Amino acid sequence: MLIVALDPPINVGSEKWVTERYKVLRDIVKGFKIGLPAIVKYGINWLNNLFKDYDGLSIADLKLADIGDIMALTATMLRNVGFNAVIAHAFVGYEKGIEVLAKVCEKEGIKLILVVSMSHEGSKEFIDRHIDEFVDTAERVGSWGVVAPATRPNVIQYIRSKVGSKIKIISPGVGVQGAEPGAALCAGADYEIVGRAITYSDLEKVRELAHGLLESQKKRLLLCRG
Amino acid sequence: MLIVALDPPINVGSEKWVTERYKVLRDIVKGFKIGLPAIVKYGINWLNNLFKDYDGLSIADLKLADIGDIMALTATMLRNVGFNAVIAHAFVGYEKGIEVLAKVCEKEGIKLILVVSMSHEGSKEFIDRHIDEFVDTAERVGSWGVVAPATRPNVIQYIRSKVGSKIKIISPGVGVQGAEPGAALCAGADYEIVGRAITYSDLEKVRELAHGLLESQKKRLLLCRG
Repeated sequence: MLIVALDPPINVGSEKWVTERYKVLRDIVKGFKIGLPAIVKYGINWLNNLFKDYDGLSIADLKLADIGDIMALTATMLRNVGFNAVIAHAFVGYEKGIEVLAKVCEKEGIKLILVVSMSHEGSKEFIDRHIDEFVDTAERVGSWGVVAPATRPNVIQYIRSKVGSKIKIISPGVGVQGAEPGAALCAGADYEIVGRAITYSDLEKVRELAHGLLESQKKRLLLCRG
Repeated sequence: MLIVALDPPINVGSEKWVTERYKVLRDIVKGFKIGLPAIVKYGINWLNNLFKDYDGLSIADLKLADIGDIMALTATMLRNVGFNAVIAHAFVGYEKGIEVLAKVCEKEGIKLILVVSMSHEGSKEFIDRHIDEFVDTAERVGSWGVVAPATRPNVIQYIRSKVGSKIKIISPGVGVQGAEPGAALCAGADYEIVGRAITYSDLEKVRELAHGLLESQKKRLLLCRG
Protein backbone atom coordinates (compact mmCIF):
# COMPACT_ATOMS: atom_id res chain seq x y z
CA MET A 1 0.00 0.00 0.00
CA LEU A 2 3.06 2.25 -0.24
CA ILE A 3 4.11 4.15 -3.35
CA VAL A 4 7.36 6.10 -3.15
CA ALA A 5 7.65 9.49 -4.84
CA LEU A 6 11.13 9.70 -6.33
CA ASP A 7 11.36 13.48 -6.59
CA PRO A 8 14.96 14.52 -6.09
CA PRO A 9 15.94 17.66 -4.18
CA ILE A 10 16.80 20.63 -6.37
CA ASN A 11 20.51 20.75 -7.26
CA VAL A 12 20.86 17.00 -7.00
CA GLY A 13 21.59 15.00 -10.13
CA SER A 14 18.31 13.16 -10.59
CA GLU A 15 19.50 10.10 -12.44
CA LYS A 16 21.77 8.56 -9.84
CA TRP A 17 19.62 9.72 -6.92
CA VAL A 18 16.48 8.17 -8.41
CA THR A 19 18.13 4.95 -9.56
CA GLU A 20 19.80 4.26 -6.21
CA ARG A 21 16.61 4.75 -4.22
CA TYR A 22 14.57 2.73 -6.68
CA LYS A 23 16.97 -0.19 -6.31
CA VAL A 24 16.92 -0.37 -2.51
CA LEU A 25 13.12 -0.02 -2.36
CA ARG A 26 11.73 -1.95 -5.31
CA ASP A 27 11.15 -5.25 -3.52
CA ILE A 28 9.33 -3.77 -0.51
CA VAL A 29 6.97 -1.17 -2.00
CA LYS A 30 4.04 -1.33 -4.42
CA GLY A 31 5.35 1.23 -6.86
CA PHE A 32 7.05 4.50 -7.67
CA LYS A 33 5.97 7.91 -8.86
CA ILE A 34 8.23 10.34 -10.68
CA GLY A 35 7.16 13.98 -10.84
CA LEU A 36 7.50 16.88 -13.23
CA PRO A 37 10.81 18.44 -12.09
CA ALA A 38 12.92 15.27 -12.56
CA ILE A 39 11.37 14.60 -15.97
CA VAL A 40 11.66 18.20 -17.14
CA LYS A 41 15.27 18.41 -16.04
CA TYR A 42 16.57 15.26 -17.69
CA GLY A 43 13.93 14.16 -20.15
CA ILE A 44 12.86 10.53 -20.14
CA ASN A 45 15.45 8.61 -22.11
CA TRP A 46 17.54 7.89 -19.02
CA LEU A 47 14.50 6.10 -17.54
CA ASN A 48 14.39 3.66 -20.39
CA ASN A 49 15.73 0.68 -18.50
CA LEU A 50 14.85 1.65 -14.95
CA PHE A 51 11.46 -0.05 -14.75
CA LYS A 52 12.38 -2.97 -16.99
CA ASP A 53 11.40 -6.24 -15.32
CA TYR A 54 9.56 -4.29 -12.60
CA ASP A 55 5.99 -5.45 -12.14
CA GLY A 56 4.91 -2.81 -9.62
CA LEU A 57 3.42 0.57 -10.44
CA SER A 58 5.60 3.07 -12.32
CA ILE A 59 3.65 6.32 -12.36
CA ALA A 60 4.55 9.44 -14.36
CA ASP A 61 3.14 12.32 -12.36
CA LEU A 62 3.12 15.15 -14.88
CA LYS A 63 -0.44 16.10 -13.90
CA LEU A 64 -1.29 16.33 -17.60
CA ALA A 65 -3.70 19.17 -18.34
CA ASP A 66 -3.49 19.84 -22.06
CA ILE A 67 -5.71 19.12 -25.05
CA GLY A 68 -6.31 15.42 -25.70
CA ASP A 69 -3.84 15.00 -28.55
CA ILE A 70 -0.94 16.44 -26.59
CA MET A 71 -1.75 14.36 -23.49
CA ALA A 72 -2.07 11.21 -25.60
CA LEU A 73 1.25 11.85 -27.37
CA THR A 74 2.97 12.44 -24.03
CA ALA A 75 1.44 9.31 -22.47
CA THR A 76 2.68 7.19 -25.38
CA MET A 77 6.18 8.59 -24.95
CA LEU A 78 6.05 7.80 -21.24
CA ARG A 79 4.87 4.25 -21.94
CA ASN A 80 7.75 3.77 -24.34
CA VAL A 81 10.31 4.36 -21.59
CA GLY A 82 8.64 2.08 -19.07
CA PHE A 83 5.94 3.97 -17.20
CA ASN A 84 2.76 1.93 -16.76
CA ALA A 85 0.57 4.69 -15.29
CA VAL A 86 0.01 8.41 -15.90
CA ILE A 87 -1.70 11.11 -13.85
CA ALA A 88 -3.93 13.68 -15.57
CA HIS A 89 -6.37 16.38 -14.46
CA ALA A 90 -10.07 15.61 -14.82
CA PHE A 91 -10.46 19.39 -14.89
CA VAL A 92 -9.58 19.64 -18.60
CA GLY A 93 -12.89 17.96 -19.39
CA TYR A 94 -13.96 14.88 -21.30
CA GLU A 95 -14.60 15.94 -24.89
CA LYS A 96 -11.38 16.02 -26.96
CA GLY A 97 -9.60 16.04 -23.61
CA ILE A 98 -9.63 13.07 -21.20
CA GLU A 99 -11.62 11.13 -23.82
CA VAL A 100 -8.64 11.09 -26.20
CA LEU A 101 -6.11 10.32 -23.47
CA ALA A 102 -8.23 7.46 -22.09
CA LYS A 103 -8.48 5.79 -25.49
CA VAL A 104 -4.72 5.84 -25.96
CA CYS A 105 -4.18 4.58 -22.40
CA GLU A 106 -6.49 1.64 -23.06
CA LYS A 107 -4.79 0.86 -26.36
CA GLU A 108 -1.27 1.11 -24.94
CA GLY A 109 -1.98 -0.63 -21.63
CA ILE A 110 -1.38 2.47 -19.53
CA LYS A 111 -3.21 2.88 -16.21
CA LEU A 112 -4.99 6.24 -16.21
CA ILE A 113 -5.18 8.07 -12.88
CA LEU A 114 -7.26 11.26 -12.65
CA VAL A 115 -6.75 14.04 -10.12
CA VAL A 116 -10.08 14.73 -8.41
CA SER A 117 -8.74 16.68 -5.43
CA MET A 118 -5.35 18.07 -4.39
CA SER A 119 -3.48 18.52 -1.12
CA HIS A 120 -2.90 22.29 -1.18
CA GLU A 121 -5.40 24.84 0.14
CA GLY A 122 -6.16 26.19 -3.34
CA SER A 123 -7.74 22.88 -4.29
CA LYS A 124 -10.90 24.06 -2.49
CA GLU A 125 -11.22 27.12 -4.74
CA PHE A 126 -12.16 25.29 -7.94
CA ILE A 127 -11.17 21.62 -8.05
CA ASP A 128 -13.01 20.40 -4.96
CA ARG A 129 -16.22 22.07 -6.14
CA HIS A 130 -16.30 19.52 -8.98
CA ILE A 131 -15.33 16.33 -7.15
CA ASP A 132 -18.61 14.61 -8.05
CA GLU A 133 -18.26 15.44 -11.74
CA PHE A 134 -14.58 14.46 -11.78
CA VAL A 135 -15.37 11.10 -10.23
CA ASP A 136 -18.12 10.69 -12.86
CA THR A 137 -15.50 11.39 -15.56
CA ALA A 138 -13.18 8.80 -14.01
CA GLU A 139 -15.97 6.20 -14.09
CA ARG A 140 -17.03 7.18 -17.60
CA VAL A 141 -13.58 6.64 -19.11
CA GLY A 142 -12.81 3.52 -17.06
CA SER A 143 -10.01 5.25 -15.18
CA TRP A 144 -7.85 2.82 -13.18
CA GLY A 145 -7.50 5.24 -10.30
CA VAL A 146 -8.03 8.71 -8.88
CA VAL A 147 -5.80 10.95 -6.78
CA ALA A 148 -7.17 12.39 -3.53
CA PRO A 149 -5.11 13.88 -0.70
CA ALA A 150 -4.26 12.06 2.53
CA THR A 151 -4.48 15.41 4.27
CA ARG A 152 -8.26 15.36 3.83
CA PRO A 153 -9.58 11.92 4.86
CA ASN A 154 -13.20 13.04 4.61
CA VAL A 155 -12.69 13.61 0.88
CA ILE A 156 -11.27 10.10 0.53
CA GLN A 157 -14.19 8.60 2.46
CA TYR A 158 -16.62 10.45 0.25
CA ILE A 159 -14.95 9.25 -2.97
CA ARG A 160 -14.79 5.65 -1.72
CA SER A 161 -18.51 5.78 -0.90
CA LYS A 162 -19.17 6.87 -4.48
CA VAL A 163 -16.95 4.50 -6.47
CA GLY A 164 -17.10 1.33 -4.38
CA SER A 165 -14.17 -0.94 -5.16
CA LYS A 166 -14.07 -0.22 -8.91
CA ILE A 167 -11.47 2.54 -8.82
CA LYS A 168 -8.21 2.75 -6.89
CA ILE A 169 -7.61 5.79 -4.69
CA ILE A 170 -4.03 7.06 -4.54
CA SER A 171 -3.21 9.49 -1.72
CA PRO A 172 -0.28 11.88 -1.63
CA GLY A 173 0.37 14.06 1.41
CA VAL A 174 1.68 11.46 3.89
CA GLY A 175 4.79 12.42 5.83
CA VAL A 176 6.30 15.87 5.33
CA GLN A 177 3.00 17.29 4.05
CA GLY A 178 1.31 16.36 7.30
CA ALA A 179 -0.83 13.21 7.10
CA GLU A 180 0.14 10.23 9.27
CA PRO A 181 0.97 6.89 7.69
CA GLY A 182 -2.16 4.76 7.42
CA ALA A 183 -4.63 7.63 7.86
CA ALA A 184 -5.58 7.70 4.18
CA LEU A 185 -5.78 3.89 4.08
CA CYS A 186 -8.15 3.96 7.05
CA ALA A 187 -10.28 6.50 5.18
CA GLY A 188 -10.50 4.18 2.18
CA ALA A 189 -7.43 4.82 0.02
CA ASP A 190 -5.65 1.91 -1.70
CA TYR A 191 -2.19 3.45 -1.78
CA GLU A 192 -0.36 6.16 0.12
CA ILE A 193 2.38 8.12 -1.60
CA VAL A 194 5.37 9.05 0.52
CA GLY A 195 8.31 11.02 -0.76
CA ARG A 196 10.70 13.09 1.28
CA ALA A 197 10.08 11.31 4.61
CA ILE A 198 11.69 8.25 3.06
CA THR A 199 13.88 9.50 0.23
CA TYR A 200 15.54 12.62 1.66
CA SER A 201 17.87 10.69 3.94
CA ASP A 202 21.22 9.03 3.39
CA LEU A 203 20.89 6.15 1.01
CA GLU A 204 21.76 3.54 3.65
CA LYS A 205 18.78 4.60 5.78
CA VAL A 206 16.18 4.68 3.00
CA ARG A 207 15.16 1.04 3.23
CA GLU A 208 14.86 1.15 7.01
CA LEU A 209 12.68 4.26 6.79
CA ALA A 210 10.40 2.57 4.26
CA HIS A 211 10.11 -0.48 6.53
CA GLY A 212 9.22 1.80 9.43
CA LEU A 213 6.56 3.48 7.34
CA LEU A 214 5.06 0.15 6.29
CA GLU A 215 4.89 -0.85 9.98
CA SER A 216 3.16 2.42 10.87
CA GLN A 217 0.61 1.84 8.11
CA LYS A 218 -0.12 -1.67 9.42
CA LYS A 219 -0.53 -0.51 13.02
CA ARG A 220 -2.87 2.28 12.06
CA LEU A 221 -4.92 -0.07 9.87
CA LEU A 222 -5.23 -2.57 12.73
CA LEU A 223 -6.56 0.18 14.97
CA CYS A 224 -9.07 1.60 12.52
CA ARG A 225 -10.31 -1.72 11.18
CA GLY A 226 -10.46 -3.18 14.68
CA MET B 1 1.81 39.57 -33.00
CA LEU B 2 2.94 36.10 -34.02
CA ILE B 3 4.30 33.46 -31.64
CA VAL B 4 5.47 30.20 -33.18
CA ALA B 5 4.83 26.91 -31.39
CA LEU B 6 7.91 24.76 -31.88
CA ASP B 7 6.29 21.39 -31.21
CA PRO B 8 8.05 18.77 -33.32
CA PRO B 9 6.16 15.91 -34.96
CA ILE B 10 6.37 12.60 -33.10
CA ASN B 11 9.35 10.50 -34.21
CA VAL B 12 11.36 13.55 -35.18
CA GLY B 13 14.48 14.39 -33.21
CA SER B 14 13.34 17.54 -31.41
CA GLU B 15 16.65 19.26 -30.92
CA LYS B 16 17.70 19.83 -34.52
CA TRP B 17 14.13 20.39 -35.72
CA VAL B 18 13.47 23.06 -33.09
CA THR B 19 16.83 24.78 -33.43
CA GLU B 20 16.64 25.06 -37.24
CA ARG B 21 13.14 26.54 -37.22
CA TYR B 22 14.00 28.92 -34.40
CA LYS B 23 16.96 30.25 -36.37
CA VAL B 24 15.07 31.02 -39.57
CA LEU B 25 12.17 32.65 -37.71
CA ARG B 26 13.69 34.54 -34.78
CA ASP B 27 14.02 37.92 -36.49
CA ILE B 28 10.47 38.03 -37.89
CA VAL B 29 8.27 36.77 -35.04
CA LYS B 30 7.55 38.00 -31.50
CA GLY B 31 8.41 34.79 -29.74
CA PHE B 32 8.37 31.02 -29.43
CA LYS B 33 6.50 28.49 -27.36
CA ILE B 34 7.79 25.00 -26.61
CA GLY B 35 5.30 22.42 -25.37
CA LEU B 36 5.29 19.41 -23.10
CA PRO B 37 6.23 16.60 -25.51
CA ALA B 38 9.52 18.15 -26.67
CA ILE B 39 10.53 18.98 -23.10
CA VAL B 40 9.51 15.59 -21.72
CA LYS B 41 11.37 13.76 -24.45
CA TYR B 42 14.69 15.55 -24.22
CA GLY B 43 14.64 17.43 -20.95
CA ILE B 44 15.75 21.05 -20.94
CA ASN B 45 19.52 21.08 -20.88
CA TRP B 46 19.77 21.13 -24.69
CA LEU B 47 17.78 24.40 -24.64
CA ASN B 48 20.41 26.08 -22.53
CA ASN B 49 21.88 28.25 -25.26
CA LEU B 50 18.96 28.43 -27.69
CA PHE B 51 17.36 31.61 -26.38
CA LYS B 52 20.61 33.28 -25.38
CA ASP B 53 20.72 36.82 -26.79
CA TYR B 54 17.07 36.51 -27.86
CA ASP B 55 14.92 39.34 -26.60
CA GLY B 56 11.56 38.01 -27.79
CA LEU B 57 9.23 35.78 -25.82
CA SER B 58 10.44 32.26 -24.97
CA ILE B 59 7.48 30.47 -23.45
CA ALA B 60 7.55 27.06 -21.75
CA ASP B 61 4.10 25.62 -22.30
CA LEU B 62 3.96 22.85 -19.72
CA LYS B 63 0.49 23.97 -18.58
CA LEU B 64 1.67 23.64 -15.00
CA ALA B 65 -1.06 22.33 -12.71
CA ASP B 66 0.64 21.08 -9.56
CA ILE B 67 0.99 22.35 -6.00
CA GLY B 68 2.76 25.70 -5.71
CA ASP B 69 6.16 24.40 -4.61
CA ILE B 70 6.45 21.99 -7.54
CA MET B 71 5.34 24.65 -10.07
CA ALA B 72 7.79 27.17 -8.59
CA LEU B 73 10.68 24.69 -8.70
CA THR B 74 9.88 23.83 -12.31
CA ALA B 75 9.60 27.51 -13.31
CA THR B 76 13.01 28.24 -11.81
CA MET B 77 14.54 25.35 -13.75
CA LEU B 78 12.93 26.64 -16.96
CA ARG B 79 14.25 30.15 -16.28
CA ASN B 80 17.74 28.77 -15.79
CA VAL B 81 17.81 27.38 -19.34
CA GLY B 82 16.52 30.54 -20.98
CA PHE B 83 12.72 30.58 -20.87
CA ASN B 84 11.31 33.98 -19.92
CA ALA B 85 7.65 32.97 -19.65
CA VAL B 86 5.69 29.99 -18.28
CA ILE B 87 2.10 28.86 -18.74
CA ALA B 88 0.14 27.53 -15.75
CA HIS B 89 -3.49 26.62 -15.05
CA ALA B 90 -5.50 29.08 -12.97
CA PHE B 91 -7.74 26.18 -11.95
CA VAL B 92 -5.25 24.85 -9.38
CA GLY B 93 -6.30 27.81 -7.27
CA TYR B 94 -4.53 30.70 -5.58
CA GLU B 95 -3.68 29.57 -2.06
CA LYS B 96 -0.42 27.55 -1.95
CA GLY B 97 -0.89 27.14 -5.68
CA ILE B 98 -0.65 30.06 -8.16
CA GLU B 99 0.26 32.31 -5.24
CA VAL B 100 3.59 30.48 -4.75
CA LEU B 101 4.33 30.28 -8.46
CA ALA B 102 3.60 33.99 -8.99
CA LYS B 103 6.00 35.01 -6.22
CA VAL B 104 8.83 33.01 -7.75
CA CYS B 105 8.02 34.37 -11.22
CA GLU B 106 8.22 37.91 -9.91
CA LYS B 107 11.49 37.23 -8.12
CA GLU B 108 13.09 35.46 -11.07
CA GLY B 109 11.78 37.81 -13.78
CA ILE B 110 9.56 35.18 -15.40
CA LYS B 111 6.39 36.26 -17.21
CA LEU B 112 3.46 34.29 -15.79
CA ILE B 113 0.71 33.34 -18.23
CA LEU B 114 -2.46 31.70 -16.88
CA VAL B 115 -4.81 29.47 -18.86
CA VAL B 116 -8.35 30.83 -18.49
CA SER B 117 -9.92 28.94 -21.43
CA MET B 118 -8.79 26.21 -23.83
CA SER B 119 -9.39 25.38 -27.48
CA HIS B 120 -10.84 21.86 -27.14
CA GLU B 121 -14.55 21.17 -26.59
CA GLY B 122 -13.99 19.86 -23.06
CA SER B 123 -12.93 23.34 -21.96
CA LYS B 124 -16.63 24.21 -21.69
CA GLU B 125 -17.26 21.42 -19.15
CA PHE B 126 -15.35 22.97 -16.24
CA ILE B 127 -12.77 25.57 -17.21
CA ASP B 128 -15.01 28.01 -19.07
CA ARG B 129 -17.50 28.02 -16.18
CA HIS B 130 -14.82 29.77 -14.12
CA ILE B 131 -13.46 32.28 -16.64
CA ASP B 132 -14.43 35.26 -14.45
CA GLU B 133 -12.72 33.82 -11.40
CA PHE B 134 -9.63 32.77 -13.38
CA VAL B 135 -9.28 36.28 -14.79
CA ASP B 136 -9.64 37.60 -11.24
CA THR B 137 -6.80 35.28 -10.18
CA ALA B 138 -4.67 36.56 -13.08
CA GLU B 139 -5.26 40.16 -11.97
CA ARG B 140 -4.72 39.33 -8.31
CA VAL B 141 -1.25 37.83 -8.88
CA GLY B 142 -0.19 40.39 -11.47
CA SER B 143 -0.06 37.82 -14.25
CA TRP B 144 1.64 39.11 -17.40
CA GLY B 145 -0.81 37.31 -19.67
CA VAL B 146 -3.64 34.84 -20.06
CA VAL B 147 -4.29 32.14 -22.64
CA ALA B 148 -7.64 32.09 -24.48
CA PRO B 149 -8.41 30.22 -27.71
CA ALA B 150 -8.52 31.85 -31.16
CA THR B 151 -11.26 29.37 -32.01
CA ARG B 152 -13.65 31.25 -29.71
CA PRO B 153 -13.36 34.99 -30.41
CA ASN B 154 -16.32 35.82 -28.18
CA VAL B 155 -14.36 34.50 -25.20
CA ILE B 156 -11.41 36.72 -26.17
CA GLN B 157 -13.69 39.76 -26.52
CA TYR B 158 -15.17 39.07 -23.11
CA ILE B 159 -11.78 38.76 -21.43
CA ARG B 160 -10.49 41.93 -23.11
CA SER B 161 -13.55 43.82 -21.89
CA LYS B 162 -12.74 42.67 -18.36
CA VAL B 163 -8.98 43.26 -18.18
CA GLY B 164 -8.56 46.36 -20.33
CA SER B 165 -4.97 46.70 -21.51
CA LYS B 166 -3.35 45.48 -18.28
CA ILE B 167 -2.98 41.83 -19.27
CA LYS B 168 -1.78 40.29 -22.54
CA ILE B 169 -4.03 37.76 -24.26
CA ILE B 170 -2.24 34.90 -26.03
CA SER B 171 -4.34 32.85 -28.48
CA PRO B 172 -3.56 29.36 -29.71
CA GLY B 173 -5.76 27.65 -32.28
CA VAL B 174 -4.78 29.58 -35.43
CA GLY B 175 -4.07 27.50 -38.52
CA VAL B 176 -4.50 23.73 -38.36
CA GLN B 177 -6.87 23.98 -35.37
CA GLY B 178 -9.25 26.13 -37.41
CA ALA B 179 -9.05 29.86 -36.60
CA GLU B 180 -7.99 32.23 -39.39
CA PRO B 181 -4.91 34.43 -38.96
CA GLY B 182 -5.88 37.76 -37.44
CA ALA B 183 -9.27 36.61 -36.14
CA ALA B 184 -8.09 36.47 -32.53
CA LEU B 185 -6.26 39.80 -32.89
CA CYS B 186 -9.47 41.39 -34.18
CA ALA B 187 -11.27 40.01 -31.13
CA GLY B 188 -8.73 41.63 -28.83
CA ALA B 189 -5.82 39.21 -28.48
CA ASP B 190 -2.23 40.52 -28.37
CA TYR B 191 -0.56 37.46 -29.85
CA GLU B 192 -1.62 34.55 -31.99
CA ILE B 193 0.18 31.23 -31.64
CA VAL B 194 0.72 29.26 -34.84
CA GLY B 195 2.45 25.92 -34.96
CA ARG B 196 2.02 23.27 -37.60
CA ALA B 197 0.78 25.60 -40.36
CA ILE B 198 4.25 27.16 -40.33
CA THR B 199 6.59 24.57 -38.87
CA TYR B 200 5.44 21.29 -40.47
CA SER B 201 6.86 22.11 -43.88
CA ASP B 202 10.31 21.76 -45.37
CA LEU B 203 12.76 24.01 -43.62
CA GLU B 204 13.32 26.20 -46.69
CA LYS B 205 9.63 27.14 -46.80
CA VAL B 206 9.20 27.94 -43.10
CA ARG B 207 10.22 31.59 -43.32
CA GLU B 208 8.03 32.22 -46.36
CA LEU B 209 5.04 30.64 -44.59
CA ALA B 210 5.59 32.83 -41.54
CA HIS B 211 5.77 35.94 -43.76
CA GLY B 212 2.53 34.87 -45.43
CA LEU B 213 0.88 34.45 -42.05
CA LEU B 214 2.05 37.87 -40.87
CA GLU B 215 0.57 39.39 -44.06
CA SER B 216 -2.74 37.61 -43.45
CA GLN B 217 -2.83 38.95 -39.90
CA LYS B 218 -2.23 42.50 -41.16
CA LYS B 219 -4.94 42.30 -43.81
CA ARG B 220 -7.49 40.95 -41.39
CA LEU B 221 -6.62 43.62 -38.84
CA LEU B 222 -7.02 46.36 -41.46
CA LEU B 223 -10.48 45.05 -42.28
CA CYS B 224 -11.70 44.71 -38.69
CA ARG B 225 -10.20 47.96 -37.43
CA GLY B 226 -11.39 49.86 -40.50
